[in-house]
Amino acid sequence: MLDELQSLISPPPMKNTIAAIQPLDEAAMSAARARQDQLTKPQGALGRLETLSIQLAGITRTPRPRFRDPVIITLAGDHGITQQGVSAYPSAVTPQMVLNFVRGGAAINVLARHVGARVVVGDAGVNAVFPSDLRIVHKKIACGTRDFSVEPAMTRAQAEQAIEAGIEIVTREIDRGADLIGTGDMGIGNTTPSSAIVAAITGRSANEVTGRGTGVDDAVLAHKKVVIARALEFHKPNAADALDVLSKVGGFEIGELAGVMIGAASRNVPVVIDGFISGAAALIAFGLAPAIQPYLIPAHRSVEIGHRAVLEHLKLNPLLDLDLRLGEGTGAALGISLCLASAKILDEMATFGDAGVSEKSE
Amino acid sequence: MLDELQSLISPPPMKNTIAAIQPLDEAAMSAARARQDQLTKPQGALGRLETLSIQLAGITRTPRPRFRDPVIITLAGDHGITQQGVSAYPSAVTPQMVLNFVRGGAAINVLARHVGARVVVGDAGVNAVFPSDLRIVHKKIACGTRDFSVEPAMTRAQAEQAIEAGIEIVTREIDRGADLIGTGDMGIGNTTPSSAIVAAITGRSANEVTGRGTGVDDAVLAHKKVVIARALEFHKPNAADALDVLSKVGGFEIGELAGVMIGAASRNVPVVIDGFISGAAALIAFGLAPAIQPYLIPAHRSVEIGHRAVLEHLKLNPLLDLDLRLGEGTGAALGISLCLASAKILDEMATFGDAGVSEKSE
Repeated sequence: MLDELQSLISPPPMKNTIAAIQPLDEAAMSAARARQDQLTKPQGALGRLETLSIQLAGITRTPRPRFRDPVIITLAGDHGITQQGVSAYPSAVTPQMVLNFVRGGAAINVLARHVGARVVVGDAGVNAVFPSDLRIVHKKIACGTRDFSVEPAMTRAQAEQAIEAGIEIVTREIDRGADLIGTGDMGIGNTTPSSAIVAAITGRSANEVTGRGTGVDDAVLAHKKVVIARALEFHKPNAADALDVLSKVGGFEIGELAGVMIGAASRNVPVVIDGFISGAAALIAFGLAPAIQPYLIPAHRSVEIGHRAVLEHLKLNPLLDLDLRLGEGTGAALGISLCLASAKILDEMATFGDAGVSEKSE
Repeated sequence: MLDELQSLISPPPMKNTIAAIQPLDEAAMSAARARQDQLTKPQGALGRLETLSIQLAGITRTPRPRFRDPVIITLAGDHGITQQGVSAYPSAVTPQMVLNFVRGGAAINVLARHVGARVVVGDAGVNAVFPSDLRIVHKKIACGTRDFSVEPAMTRAQAEQAIEAGIEIVTREIDRGADLIGTGDMGIGNTTPSSAIVAAITGRSANEVTGRGTGVDDAVLAHKKVVIARALEFHKPNAADALDVLSKVGGFEIGELAGVMIGAASRNVPVVIDGFISGAAALIAFGLAPAIQPYLIPAHRSVEIGHRAVLEHLKLNPLLDLDLRLGEGTGAALGISLCLASAKILDEMATFGDAGVSEKSE
């Protein structure tokens, strides 16, 4: 309660939060590994479920982590770059989908219910004014970014503000009990800033990391690539300065999601990252705080072509590959279910000793 | 109730059950596809979850399938071939693990609880006498197969009896309410008959389809390959006659699992198949009843090398690839969760009309 009040009064500054991210707990991981090898199955026979459980032990600093309150944080923002005709849907869909999330009718609501997670919806920068009593987290930086084909998407101060807002959102949820975080996004046009971020940070060309987003045709795809390539040429974002990249070609929901990741890692809470937009946010988070890498659990490999570059850059091997390209945290929801499964295997299975089962003959 | 009594009195003969397998319902699939395209997401953006939901509609012959009682059927058997030293564990582990299943301490119990499925454990041919009041399905064909390096694993009559026992097991569960079936196995040594079946039916060499099972070392692996190759040379199983393959080099749990698949398909119930052993059973089921193919949902790609040949032969694309090699139905449990997720997406999401969300601009 005191913690909650404190976080309301004085949100943790970005630099302190980054400095609080520790290496994973080796002792907890060793204990988890030793227990896995005593459970009634051949050693290693549950593959990724075993290695994932050990990672979760290291993140949470406990040999048998139990998760009670998984939360998917889905943040929405609009994008000035949509004025360049880069998306198949009108920007009006962003606020319409926020309302759909609140009413529980979107894919993320269905999948979060299925896996037993809460959804926290936030306005990071939607180009609409929501009623202040709408049950979302109100963290609007501005009514959409600027059109980055002609000017920076946001100021550097706004970029930092977005990171801090994300830290605040996740800190509040962790104070309320959240112990496993998934990330999600909504924002018509947001594959365009994401591709620009990925190109800027990984050094790939716009051509290599730009895809169809919600489903643009060949002509729009070609145009989208040109828009991104020209913007990168114009802004020359500094790959070594994540705030520079975020401010020049980013998005408010992307910045806040990066803050969510940093805030969760600083509190030893695992972060299940969704697809391409969350991946771009992870690149920003990793640029600001390289120690975050082992806290990130990549839910799936998106259809969106640039996601491969994200996963390679962050050295992350996704859990799922189901041809998803929706965002919202839908992949993260499925990834959360696998995290819960892996933790339950570690915690709930009988050992050879418990069950009176013979071990491997040597 | 009458159905249940009838199935107790006169189990459906294998041939009638096979003849009852229908093509998927095109009308239900069209209706499901049309609904998917009206849900508040870009068309196709949920990838495999969308195509899977359409398949489930076709199997269940209903445009919006809802599953209330997923059941994983885990069948156990022993194998005479273990006398040739092909496994890392002693055969005593098979009955020990059956007891572990009954007490709820095995991986399959943990994962079934996680995904909301029941586990039905059955004795197809364990080399131990269980108390008749043990809460398992008692369908023992014999106390383990014969050593197929020197004689057929079972008689042709036993092979047919195993298929019919599997049909009975699944028919009983469906009569009780089961509406989604997962398959699982337990049997020390059972990757050896499975590799032999895969080689016999797909025409691959023993070398190509034989792996480490529970984790044998290089020397045992080499020996296991020789044992399988010699047995295939000795028995010359007829690839076109699945009962011949099953009787010469198979296993009782493999035969009963093939019967489970056939029985489920004949009742329009989807079958989520686990890894390599279930895959070998699926080859037997497909050999007997080629119409079964669209009813099979492959949960995952096993580490066990021969599983690739199974999936190729059956033209099945697995949902997951998590380096699992445990069996028991553990992969099937995770696959069931994805089936439930896909059905809920189809059933529970709002449409563009419901939610007042703008559609794609043309």
